[in-house]
Amino acid sequence: MISIVILGTGNVAKHLFDVFWGNKEINVLQVLGRNKHKLSYFKDKVDTSTDFSKILDADIFLIAVSDDSVAEVAQFLNGKNGLVAHTSGSVPIAALGNKSRRGVFYPLQSFSEGKPIDFKTVPICIEAENEVDLKQLQKLAQQVSLQIHEISSEQRKSIHLAAVFANNFTNHLFTIASEICADNDLPFSILTPLIKETVEKMGCLAPFDAQTGPAKRNDIRTMESHLNQLKNKNYQDIYSLLSKSIKEKYGQKL
Amino acid sequence: MISIVILGTGNVAKHLFDVFWGNKEINVLQVLGRNKHKLSYFKDKVDTSTDFSKILDADIFLIAVSDDSVAEVAQFLNGKNGLVAHTSGSVPIAALGNKSRRGVFYPLQSFSEGKPIDFKTVPICIEAENEVDLKQLQKLAQQVSLQIHEISSEQRKSIHLAAVFANNFTNHLFTIASEICADNDLPFSILTPLIKETVEKMGCLAPFDAQTGPAKRNDIRTMESHLNQLKNKNYQDIYSLLSKSIKEKYGQKL
Repeated sequence: MISIVILGTGNVAKHLFDVFWGNKEINVLQVLGRNKHKLSYFKDKVDTSTDFSKILDADIFLIAVSDDSVAEVAQFLNGKNGLVAHTSGSVPIAALGNKSRRGVFYPLQSFSEGKPIDFKTVPICIEAENEVDLKQLQKLAQQVSLQIHEISSEQRKSIHLAAVFANNFTNHLFTIASEICADNDLPFSILTPLIKETVEKMGCLAPFDAQTGPAKRNDIRTMESHLNQLKNKNYQDIYSLLSKSIKEKYGQKL
Repeated sequence: MISIVILGTGNVAKHLFDVFWGNKEINVLQVLGRNKHKLSYFKDKVDTSTDFSKILDADIFLIAVSDDSVAEVAQFLNGKNGLVAHTSGSVPIAALGNKSRRGVFYPLQSFSEGKPIDFKTVPICIEAENEVDLKQLQKLAQQVSLQIHEISSEQRKSIHLAAVFANNFTNHLFTIASEICADNDLPFSILTPLIKETVEKMGCLAPFDAQTGPAKRNDIRTMESHLNQLKNKNYQDIYSLLSKSIKEKYGQKL
C-alpha cells in the first residue's frame, strides 16, 4: 500500500484524488490547500488542512498546484522522508529544492472541472533521481494508468510545448471556426464529424502525410477568397501565416 | 429508384460511388473521367467512359472533380433533363452555368484514399433552386446520411473557410507537435489521449469555454521559454500570433 499526501485542490488534484480514492493499493492520507472552500470537495473522505506546517508523513507527497507555486509549496516538505513529486508539465525537477527526495508525476492530459477521465489511457510521465524513487513512482503510476513513460525534465519541457500546439492552439482554431459558423447561422456541430475524422486519421496516417487544403495545393484563388471573408485582423493573420507555413513545408519536400 | 451518373474519379467520387453502390434505392449508371487508370476502380461494376460527349441520361448528375474543373465539366451536361449537382465546398451553384437544373450535394468530410467512412455521420449540405430539385437531393442524401442540411452557396463558402481552420490548420499544428516530439525522442502517440480529449470535450463545452494554456493565463515566463525552444521561424511566428490572438480574445472578455 502506498500512502499519499496531496498538496493542492485544483482540477489535477481532484482528478488524481478521485482515481487514487478508488484504488485499494493507494491510501490518500491528507489533502492540503489554502482555499477552505476548495478543500470541502475532499473533507468527507480524508483529512484536510489549510495549514502547511501540519503535513502528515507519507510515502509520496504530490504537489498539484499552479506552476508558479510549486517551489514555494515544496519548501514545506523539507526534512520529510517521503518522496516529493510535482505534477506539472513545465516545471523542472530542480524546482523542488535540494532538501528532499525529488520526483515528477505528470499526467499528460487536460483536466476539466466535473468531466471524468478514463485514467487508464492517460500517459503518466515520471522522473526521479535514483532507481528506488523511480520504482516507487512507477508503482503508483501502474495502479492508475496503462501508459507510463520515463521522461527527463528536458523532454517534459518539449512535451509541454508540443501540447500547447496540439491542444491549446488547436482549441483556439476550433473557437475561430465556431465563430465563423455562428456568424453565418450555421451550427458548429456541422463540423464535428470532420474534426473527429482529422483526429481519427492520425491512427493510420502521420499528420504530415494527412495534410490537405488550399495551402497544400497552393490554391491561390481560394486562399484570397477566404482572406476576404475574414473580418478579424488576427484571424486574417493566422490564416496567412499558417498557409505560408504549410506552403513552405510542402514546397520544400515536393 | 434514383439513377445517377458520377463525373470524376477522385476520392470524393470513389467514396460516393461506394456508398451509392451498396444502396438498393440508388442506381449508378455510369462513371466518367479523363484518366483511364483511375476509371479502372469502377469498371467492373458500372459503365465507365473517358468520353464526356457520351454521358448517359440520369435523374442526377454528380460532378465530383477538382474545384477548378467544375464549370468546364458542367458544360458537357447542357441540355440534359436531369439535375446537375456538384460536390464542392467552395464552388457557387452558379458555376454550373445556366443551361440545366442546378444543385449542390456537398458531403462535409475529408475523404482519404482507402480509408472507409461511416457515411451515416457525414453532414450532406444540399442546395437547389426550386422545391422539386431540393426534394430530389434530399431523397438522395437521406439514403446515405442521417445529417442533411439545406445550405446556401454563401453559407457553404463560410463552412469551407471554417473547415480550413478546424481541419487543415489543426492538422498542421499536429504536424508541428509531432516534429517537436521527434526532435526530442518522444513518440507522437504520447499526445493522442490529450488530442482526443480536446475534441471530445467539444461535446459538452464550447471551444471558447474550453480554452486553457499559457496564453489564456497570460503566463509570460512560460511563453518566453516556449519561444526559445522553437528553432523554426514559422513555428515561432505561429506561436506568437496564436498566443496574441488568444490573449486578446480573453483579455477583452474578462
